Amino acid sequence: MNNIELFKKNFDPYLKEYLNKKIRNTSDYTGDPFIQDYIRYIKKLILAGGKRIRPYIAFLIYEILGGKEKTQTLKFLVSLELFHSFCLVHDDIMDKAGFRHGIKSINKYILGKLNQQKRLNDLVHIANSQSILSGDLLFNWSYEILNLNNDFSQKIMQKIRIIFHKMADEVIVGQMIDVDTTTRKKVSKELIDEKTRLKTAGYSFIKPLQIGAALAGKNAKKVEKFCKEFGLAMGIAFQTQDDLLDITSSDKKLQKTTSLDKSQNQHTYFTYFKSLEEGKKIMEKNFNKAKDLVKKLSINGDAKKKFLNLIELIQTRTF
Amino acid sequence: MNNIELFKKNFDPYLKEYLNKKIRNTSDYTGDPFIQDYIRYIKKLILAGGKRIRPYIAFLIYEILGGKEKTQTLKFLVSLELFHSFCLVHDDIMDKAGFRHGIKSINKYILGKLNQQKRLNDLVHIANSQSILSGDLLFNWSYEILNLNNDFSQKIMQKIRIIFHKMADEVIVGQMIDVDTTTRKKVSKELIDEKTRLKTAGYSFIKPLQIGAALAGKNAKKVEKFCKEFGLAMGIAFQTQDDLLDITSSDKKLQKTTSLDKSQNQHTYFTYFKSLEEGKKIMEKNFNKAKDLVKKLSINGDAKKKFLNLIELIQTRTF
Repeated sequence: MNNIELFKKNFDPYLKEYLNKKIRNTSDYTGDPFIQDYIRYIKKLILAGGKRIRPYIAFLIYEILGGKEKTQTLKFLVSLELFHSFCLVHDDIMDKAGFRHGIKSINKYILGKLNQQKRLNDLVHIANSQSILSGDLLFNWSYEILNLNNDFSQKIMQKIRIIFHKMADEVIVGQMIDVDTTTRKKVSKELIDEKTRLKTAGYSFIKPLQIGAALAGKNAKKVEKFCKEFGLAMGIAFQTQDDLLDITSSDKKLQKTTSLDKSQNQHTYFTYFKSLEEGKKIMEKNFNKAKDLVKKLSINGDAKKKFLNLIELIQTRTF
Repeated sequence: MNNIELFKKNFDPYLKEYLNKKIRNTSDYTGDPFIQDYIRYIKKLILAGGKRIRPYIAFLIYEILGGKEKTQTLKFLVSLELFHSFCLVHDDIMDKAGFRHGIKSINKYILGKLNQQKRLNDLVHIANSQSILSGDLLFNWSYEILNLNNDFSQKIMQKIRIIFHKMADEVIVGQMIDVDTTTRKKVSKELIDEKTRLKTAGYSFIKPLQIGAALAGKNAKKVEKFCKEFGLAMGIAFQTQDDLLDITSSDKKLQKTTSLDKSQNQHTYFTYFKSLEEGKKIMEKNFNKAKDLVKKLSINGDAKKKFLNLIELIQTRTF
C-alpha cells in the first residue's frame, strides 16, 4: 500500500462518520423514504471511489511543517473532500455523465428509481433537479465542517476560510469559462491557461497546500511561494494528463463517462496545438518542474520522498 | 413609503456594494468579457426586484430586542438575501422559469446571448449549466459574508453559523421533497406540511427571526418560542398564499413565470383538498395566528405595529 492509499484508509472513516451523521440529521426532519434513499446514495457515491488527492496533499504539507494534531486535521479535511464531491456532482450534470467511481452518477441513479416506480412528469429534468440539490447539500456540508470547527484556533480558521472562499469562487468561475468555451469555435491559449489555473491548479493543488500550511500555523513567504509554484505546475500537468486520458482511455478503465469531453467541444492544449506531442510536452515539462521544486526544498529526505512518490503516482496513473 | 420599502431603500446600497466588490474580484482572475457579462447580470437580476422580506424580518427583531449596530447588521444581512438569491436561481432552473423580478431569468438571459452569437453546442443545456454555476457563486458569496464577518463577536457568529447551516440543509431537503412530489400521483397532507415547514417557514421566517435575535445577543426561551411559532404560522400562510396566487394571478402581475406550478403537478393544500375554500381557510387561520402571537408580545406599541404592518402587507399582496 502506497502513502496515499494508506492515507485514504485513515481518512475515509472520518468521511463516512460525517456522512452518517448528516443522514441521521436528515431523518430528523423528513421521514420520507425516497428522499432518505437519495441522500444515502450521495454517501455511497462518495465512498465508492476517489483518491483523496486534495486532503492528502493538505495533510502532507501539514505534517512536513510540523503539524501534530493528526486526528483533528483528518476530521477537518473532510470539508475539502466534500467540496470536491460538490464540484463532481454539479460537473456530472454539465457533462451528462452517467457514471462516477464505477457506479451510477446521482443523476442516473435517481432517474432509474423514478422510472422503476413509473413516476409522472419529465423525469430526466426531475433527476437533473435532484442532482443540483444534491450538489447544493454537499456544498453546505463542506462549509459546515469549515464553519463549525472548534479544534483549531479562530485565527487559523479565519485564514482558512479566506482561502476556501477564494477557492470556491475560482473553481466556479473556472468552470463557467470551461462551459462557455465549449460553445466557441476558437479559444486562445491564454484562456486555456486561465481555466486550467482556476479550475484545476487552484482547487486541486494550490489551495489544499495553502490550507495544510495554514492548519500547521505556517505562512512564511517561502512556504507560500512553494504552494503556488508547485501547485500551478502540478495543476497544469494533472489537467493535461486528464485531457490526454480522455483521448486515449477506454470507458472501462476510467470508470467514468469519457470521450465526452471531445464530443462536447472541449478546448485543451491538445485541441489548441492540434497535436498530441505538444500537449504531452506541456505535461512532462510541468511534472518535471514540480519534481525540481520538491528537490530544491529544505525538508528531510522522507518528506521529499512522499512528495516525489505522489507526483510519480499521478504521473503514471492510467485512469 | 411603508416600513419594508424604507428598509429596502436603506439595505440595497449594501447589497449593491457587495455585488460590485465581487464583480471587481472576478475581473481580477478572469478578463473574459462573456463571463464578466454573466456575472454582471447576476447583480442586475438581484437588484431588479424582491421585497427583502428575510433581512427585513431579521432586522425588525434585532431592533426590537435592543440591537444598536444598524450599519453592521444591514451589511451582515446581505448574506441572508444572497442565500435567498441562490435559492431562486436554482429554483428557476427546476421550474423552467423564464422571468424573475420582471426581467429575464439568468437561464434565459444567457441562452439569448449564446443564440445571438450563434454559438455551438446544445445551448439550452449550456445555459442551464451556467445557471447552476451562477447559483453556486451566490451560495459561496452568502457564506463568505457569514464566514468572514468581523463586526460581531465570535460567540454570536458561531451561533448564527449553526442556524444558517441548518437553514440551508432544511431548504435544500425541502426543495428535494417538493421536486419529488411533483412526480407522485398522491401526496399526504403530512408531506405537504413537511415541505412547507422546511422550504418556506424555516428559511423565510423562523431562521431570519432566529438570526436577528442572535445578532442582538438575545436567545431567551421566550424569544425562541416566538420565532418558531410566529415563523411557522407566517410560513404556512405565505406559502399557501403563494400557491393561491399561482392559481389566480396573471403572469404580468406576478412578474415571474406562473401557472407552471399547477402544470408541473405541484401538490399544495389546494390540490390536496381539491378546494379553494379549504386552502384559503388554512391561510387565514395562520395569518390570524401570527397576528395573535404578535399582540400577546410584551413589546412596545410601535414595534408591534411594525410586525402587524408586515403581516398585513404580506396578507394583502397581489403578486
